[in-house]
Amino acid sequence: MAKQHLPLPLGFLASGIHAGLKKTGKPDMALLVSRFPAVTVGMVTTNRVKAASAKHTEKALKAGKKIQAVLVNTTNANALTGKQGEKDVLKTAKTVAEYLGITAEAVLTHSTGVIGIPLPMPKILAGVRQAVLRLSGNGAMDAAEAILTTDTFTKVSARPLMMVGKKSWLTGMAKGSGMIHPNMGTMLVYLLTDVQISRPLLNQALREAVGESFHRITVDGDVSTNDSVILMANGACGNKPLTYKGECYEQFVKALKEVCLDLAKAVVRDGEGATKFVSVTATGAKSDLDAFKIAMTIAKSPLVKTAIFGADPNWGRVMMAAGYAGASIDEFKTSVVIGGYLLYNGGKKVSWSREKLKKILSRKNVDIVVDLKLGKAKTTVYTCDLTDGYIDINGRYTT
Amino acid sequence: MAKQHLPLPLGFLASGIHAGLKKTGKPDMALLVSRFPAVTVGMVTTNRVKAASAKHTEKALKAGKKIQAVLVNTTNANALTGKQGEKDVLKTAKTVAEYLGITAEAVLTHSTGVIGIPLPMPKILAGVRQAVLRLSGNGAMDAAEAILTTDTFTKVSARPLMMVGKKSWLTGMAKGSGMIHPNMGTMLVYLLTDVQISRPLLNQALREAVGESFHRITVDGDVSTNDSVILMANGACGNKPLTYKGECYEQFVKALKEVCLDLAKAVVRDGEGATKFVSVTATGAKSDLDAFKIAMTIAKSPLVKTAIFGADPNWGRVMMAAGYAGASIDEFKTSVVIGGYLLYNGGKKVSWSREKLKKILSRKNVDIVVDLKLGKAKTTVYTCDLTDGYIDINGRYTT
Repeated sequence: MAKQHLPLPLGFLASGIHAGLKKTGKPDMALLVSRFPAVTVGMVTTNRVKAASAKHTEKALKAGKKIQAVLVNTTNANALTGKQGEKDVLKTAKTVAEYLGITAEAVLTHSTGVIGIPLPMPKILAGVRQAVLRLSGNGAMDAAEAILTTDTFTKVSARPLMMVGKKSWLTGMAKGSGMIHPNMGTMLVYLLTDVQISRPLLNQALREAVGESFHRITVDGDVSTNDSVILMANGACGNKPLTYKGECYEQFVKALKEVCLDLAKAVVRDGEGATKFVSVTATGAKSDLDAFKIAMTIAKSPLVKTAIFGADPNWGRVMMAAGYAGASIDEFKTSVVIGGYLLYNGGKKVSWSREKLKKILSRKNVDIVVDLKLGKAKTTVYTCDLTDGYIDINGRYTT
Repeated sequence: MAKQHLPLPLGFLASGIHAGLKKTGKPDMALLVSRFPAVTVGMVTTNRVKAASAKHTEKALKAGKKIQAVLVNTTNANALTGKQGEKDVLKTAKTVAEYLGITAEAVLTHSTGVIGIPLPMPKILAGVRQAVLRLSGNGAMDAAEAILTTDTFTKVSARPLMMVGKKSWLTGMAKGSGMIHPNMGTMLVYLLTDVQISRPLLNQALREAVGESFHRITVDGDVSTNDSVILMANGACGNKPLTYKGECYEQFVKALKEVCLDLAKAVVRDGEGATKFVSVTATGAKSDLDAFKIAMTIAKSPLVKTAIFGADPNWGRVMMAAGYAGASIDEFKTSVVIGGYLLYNGGKKVSWSREKLKKILSRKNVDIVVDLKLGKAKTTVYTCDLTDGYIDINGRYTT
């Protein structure tokens, strides 16, 4: 089967290579490069135990440095590796910079994989050389493949943009299927665009888009030490720089939200061991926070997630989880609808059949709606089922 | 094998019978009765969606009513059953009271099982009659068996007490193996004693003991709609009433803590699908809350729990979880020791072998100690591994 094509915005190059990190021989190192220094914003894991590379990225983003290259290695997270880990990040960035003839300050390096083991530097540095040699305007899919770990498919999305006559692109790729939880305990995500846009606007656009996508998904509730969302805008399309919120900005934000939501949903669909895609909507909540808490608590509940896996018609667990979310709820008002089928309505008699619910829960997509009937706030979050596949993958991750 | 004996304190009777609720024919209804109205204190689930019986119990405890009987049915939680559920609780309590010749206000009824389906009242009421007929001073083990659901063994513990020449007992039984999490999202626990003690002291003793036992365990982080800890003191041993904190009170509290910890550990050991017992200690924390947050976040982490199940030498996940606990942590100070084996020491080089760690993780008991070296606070919590057994049990619970 021909490889899916992923367009790169103007002025971007990418590659994905095998640096000898994955025992399987699969691609395990990716490089994303912009010909011009790009305005770059991002969000980094909230975990207080951050990988050396995550700390380095955080510092670079805070300093507002323009970025030209991002190197990503898999199999090793370079987290909890002490001072050595920090030195290895700098050494890697310096090597990338030397090969590309740019400054080391314009390089981010990201790592994902096992925690607590030093980076295999000879392999990493040899890999960098190879990754630079393979850079190409057609390399986006190679890069998207090379950042995967336990993922079973590549996660990519792109949208064309029209900036007052200038054609441009927004292209995204993501990896992640475990340790997935909101607030940047998520995954690695790279968003590239050739639109010219000011840093404050770019930052605001990213925060808005992440709030409606990567902050709305959960796989297991664990929060990674490494994960980051990076958005690079190199301005190569030559549009009049976006500096205020006009039509072009709205178009850009809309595309960004769509790409982020595509990627976020793909991450959940590929959740470790997942067999089903689950969307949970809390509506009629008193506040946005209440809606989020209830939807997310249901989405996180191992008992809800195992019931969905087994297609066990045990809808009571949805209300059980809603009840301990720490949000306002009145069991005599709330209703629960799964796959369009009313199961609970404020404790009044509802006639539902176990067989029909079992059939609904057996589908690949399960849609849960809890209506609290207390207000107007509404939120949807996305998750997957909890399966023996998850146990299997995570019981032998390093072995 | 002869059934284990569980002593009942003076003036208590118990029974466990099959009321036709469990398809397997196993005991499914328990009755605990005191000949005298007993000073009774307790704690009820913090879930905002409470079962009808949990709400009824909460009200009775708040009113400070003396209690004489507790009826427990399994297979049906009588939760989210609307007004009908509340009526069924009152009807059941009234029936128990009539058979025993006591007032309905002195009866608590508890339910555990599937949420959202009305109680099968004809079976429940017929069961009550049978349970009353079978009451006996030797019925404690029968009752302990009859409250079980997905449990694989009975959970009991007892301590003899000497109250200035008066011999008495403290006897406890518990059920619970899923939806286990602190703050009374726990299980059903019954603690009976013939000691004479004032309500305020009894209440204080229970809160102290629960704080060090049932609030220190987690199986899956889910919080039940039904669960309660009930402590009944009927005063039958004839001691001088305990009304202040003297030697006798200290003895009582010590026994209560031991019994609660025995039961809490048994619940974790019997966690749904569990193959291992895991204790997690956070020491050197800045505050008790920090120690608790870190120990509990590690104990809850699906990635830690699956690694322990698979004996995967992936200790980095322990630090990953500690990092997102929301407590103070410095990776350059913290150390991680599993089964007495040092694995991480502030990022300094530690030589540890995967083979040795794998062996340690293969044992039935796994002991994790995280030393934060930031202060003096210390807490230990207990959990179990996350296994395909958990998925299996919960993917087909109602079927």
